[in-house]
Parts: sequence; C-alpha cells; structure tokens
Amino acid sequence: MLIIGEKLNSTIPKVREAICNKDKEYIQELARKQVEAGADYLDVNTAMENEVEDMQWVVECIQEVVDAPLCIDSTNPAAVKRGLEVCKTRPMINSITMERDRLEGILPLAVEYKCPLIALTSDEKGIPKTVDERMRITEQLVEVLVKNNYNLEDLYVDPLVLPLAVNSSNASIFFQSLTGIKEKFHLKTVSGLSNVSHSLPLRRLINRYFLVICMSCGMDAAILDPLDKKIMTAVTAADLLLDKDRFARKYLQAYRAGALED
Amino acid sequence: MLIIGEKLNSTIPKVREAICNKDKEYIQELARKQVEAGADYLDVNTAMENEVEDMQWVVECIQEVVDAPLCIDSTNPAAVKRGLEVCKTRPMINSITMERDRLEGILPLAVEYKCPLIALTSDEKGIPKTVDERMRITEQLVEVLVKNNYNLEDLYVDPLVLPLAVNSSNASIFFQSLTGIKEKFHLKTVSGLSNVSHSLPLRRLINRYFLVICMSCGMDAAILDPLDKKIMTAVTAADLLLDKDRFARKYLQAYRAGALED
Repeated sequence: MLIIGEKLNSTIPKVREAICNKDKEYIQELARKQVEAGADYLDVNTAMENEVEDMQWVVECIQEVVDAPLCIDSTNPAAVKRGLEVCKTRPMINSITMERDRLEGILPLAVEYKCPLIALTSDEKGIPKTVDERMRITEQLVEVLVKNNYNLEDLYVDPLVLPLAVNSSNASIFFQSLTGIKEKFHLKTVSGLSNVSHSLPLRRLINRYFLVICMSCGMDAAILDPLDKKIMTAVTAADLLLDKDRFARKYLQAYRAGALED
Repeated sequence: MLIIGEKLNSTIPKVREAICNKDKEYIQELARKQVEAGADYLDVNTAMENEVEDMQWVVECIQEVVDAPLCIDSTNPAAVKRGLEVCKTRPMINSITMERDRLEGILPLAVEYKCPLIALTSDEKGIPKTVDERMRITEQLVEVLVKNNYNLEDLYVDPLVLPLAVNSSNASIFFQSLTGIKEKFHLKTVSGLSNVSHSLPLRRLINRYFLVICMSCGMDAAILDPLDKKIMTAVTAADLLLDKDRFARKYLQAYRAGALED
C-alpha cells in the first residue's frame, strides 16, 4: 500500500508556526523522519494567508533533504500550480471533487502535469450519505476525467468516510464503497484515517483497525501519520496477512529493526 | 461475533496440572474470568489419560460457577458423549472433520443432542492447501450432515488457517475460504487465531489483525483467549467499524469500564 505522510500540514499548530517562521530545520526534519518511517509520498498543505508562496517555500525546503515525491494538497489552483512548478519529482495532487470550482481550477493542472490525482466523491451538495451516491459521483468523475484525456490509472478515489459517532453504518458504507469502486470502475482508492473516529475516545485505536479493514478491502493508498509506530505496525502486519509480503521478509525486517510496536 | 474462550484446555500446562490435582478453584476461576471478559462459550478440552472422567469433572466444576454454555472439545467420542450428558445448558461440539472416525464417532452425538457443531475442512489426506479443496470438503460435510438430518443453521465451519511462515498465501487462502463458504453454502464460520502466526515473532499482534480481517470477511465465531485485553479490544473496535455496535454503545461502555487496551 502507498503511504502518504500527512504531517506537513499547516492545520497542525507546530507546522503552521514553522512555516510562518520559515523554520527550515523543523520542516526538513519532519520530511526526513516521515520518509525514514516509510512514507512513499509527503503531503504538503500550506492553507494560510500566503498559501502560494508558502507552498513553494515548503516544497523547496523538503526537496533539499529528501527525494520522495510530494502530494500537493490544496483547494487553491494557484497554490497547486506553484507546487507543481517547483517539484523535481512527479508529484501527486490532493484533490479534486465534482464541485465545479475544484474541477475547473485543478483538473487542467493534473492533465497538464500528467500526475497522480486524488478525487473525493463529493459534489456541490457535499459528502453523500450512501454507497450509491458515492458510486454515482465516481462515475461522473470518470466521465469528466476521460473527456479531459486524464489517464485513469493515475487516479485515486477517496470515497470519504464519515464519522461513526454520527452514524454507526458510516465505516461500513465506506468499505462497501471501496469494494464497489474497485469492482465496477477498476480504479485505485485512498483514504485518510481520522474522520472515522471523530469525537470517540481512543481514536488512534479505531483508526488503526479501520485501516486494516480498508486494506483487506483492497485500498491502494492511505494518508496517515507514518511516525505513529502502531499504525505502521498495522500496515506491516496487514501486508503480511494479505499476501503482500513474501517470506514475511518485510515483517521480519521491521521486527529486527525494532520498528514493530504491539 | 460469538466468542469461544479457549483457556480451559489441558494442553496448557497450568490447566493440565489443575485438572490432574482436581484443583476446583483454579478451574472455576478461569471459567469465571473468561465469562466476565466476554466469552459466550467456554471450550473444554481434557485430552489426557482419563479424558472421559476429567471431562465430566471439569464440566461439573464450571457449571457450579457460571451459566455460559460449554464447547465440548475432543476427538474422542466417549469424552464428547460424557461432556454432553452432564451439560446443563445446550453445548457446542468441537469438532468433526471428513475423516471417517471423527464423523462416525461424533456426528451421531451432534444429531442426538441437536447441538451446535464445529466442522473442520480436513479429511483423511489432512488439511488441504487450496481454497477449492476447502470448498469441496465443505460440500461433502454439508452432504453428510443433511443426510443425517443435522440442522445446518447450527453448523460452524472452520476452514483451517495454515501458518504464514510456511506459505505467505495461507492467510489469504483462509480469507477467501471464509468468503466462499459464506457465499456458496450460507454457513456460519469459525476459527482459532494462533496457527496463522506460528514461528513468527510478536504472534499476538499478527493474531489480532488476522481476527479483524476475518471479522471483516463475515466470520461468525472465534476461539480465542478472552483474557487478552488487546484481542478483546480488537473485537470491540471491529464490531464498531463493521456496524455491529449501534450508537457505539458497546465501545463506549468498554471504554468507560477500562476494558479497552490500545
């Protein structure tokens, strides 16, 4: 499974502070640590007053110390464009939706840069409640992407999990959507982990088991905190169980490196 | 999910010792603790020199302190018979296979007592390697059970997971078997947790994620150690995620009782 490290996000107070203070060392350390912990991509979000300039600064900072590709995370086309322009390695874009603004602003950039793209199954009406609505929005996304000559093999659909605290079917609806999107459209899927546990206690515990069930449904990528050893242990164990780790090589290697946490 | 507590088993040295010494207090404490921790059934295995008498003694011991139904676990028809005779609550039998001896000795008892029954997908040739062979043996089991007027709604099929250390597809083969048996035969399924992790480090960690994936495949029952707080936490979290816990009631209750362990 592809791991997108979520830590370089300006909604995290310390990261916000580091960006505002141009604390290069802090940003670079966070980039380095995430890659060392197993991140394949690093998400970069700088949604603040100077989003466009900050995006460029953070991307350039990171690229001084790691080679991992970045995931340019913004709803602002200008910030996405700036991020893409300064990336040395083929980045990913996070994200489009079926909202007209998001589509018109960001899709042309994904097409121009021919880069992987996360698409959320939401539209002008917000996040849908049912599996069927998620499938319908996915179908609309596929239509518009194909029409714009975007390569669907680069697409990651996020069926957007809603909190269990709101409705106890929400995780189930998400799992069914993952499976449905894979079966019907043969597309790759992705998710963040934290929404599912919103306002429940011991959130990381719920998030971890959520991730493992997502993986057993064939999810291809996750946006997560690679510095959370228990989450990364869950990934390693699930890969082992789901036949993605021949001879238990990765599991045993992680064990010997002291990277597994029960 | 139905939880069958596995601790009252004479292969565990302390339990063996307690049975040999007729240490009633030890046996009763183990019964009580398992039920308190959430076991729905208590497995009883006394496979030693005086298996039949020991079975009666352990069953009677347990029934003095708990009302939970028992799972009479033996390959010896005489021990199963004795266990069934002294059970006050409708017990379960663990187990039959397609081996002639096991079938001829134990199936008539399951039919006579009309009780739930665990059937393992193995035959004279041992445990099969593939999903297809497990499906074929399940079909044979169904045939012979129907012919003997056994009610298939009481059946739990265990597709027998083999160690990952032997073949990294073994857990995957098991998950596919679970799903296949449910889809094709509409039967309930069950498993123990420890075989999968045989000869790998941090076994309980692997067992726990294995259980969660089994649950997401719709497994109906598990034979496990209910005194392992992390395993029981995994069950609670998976029930929450799989829409088996309306309003997160069980999860929040377990949290408040301090029963969850991250």
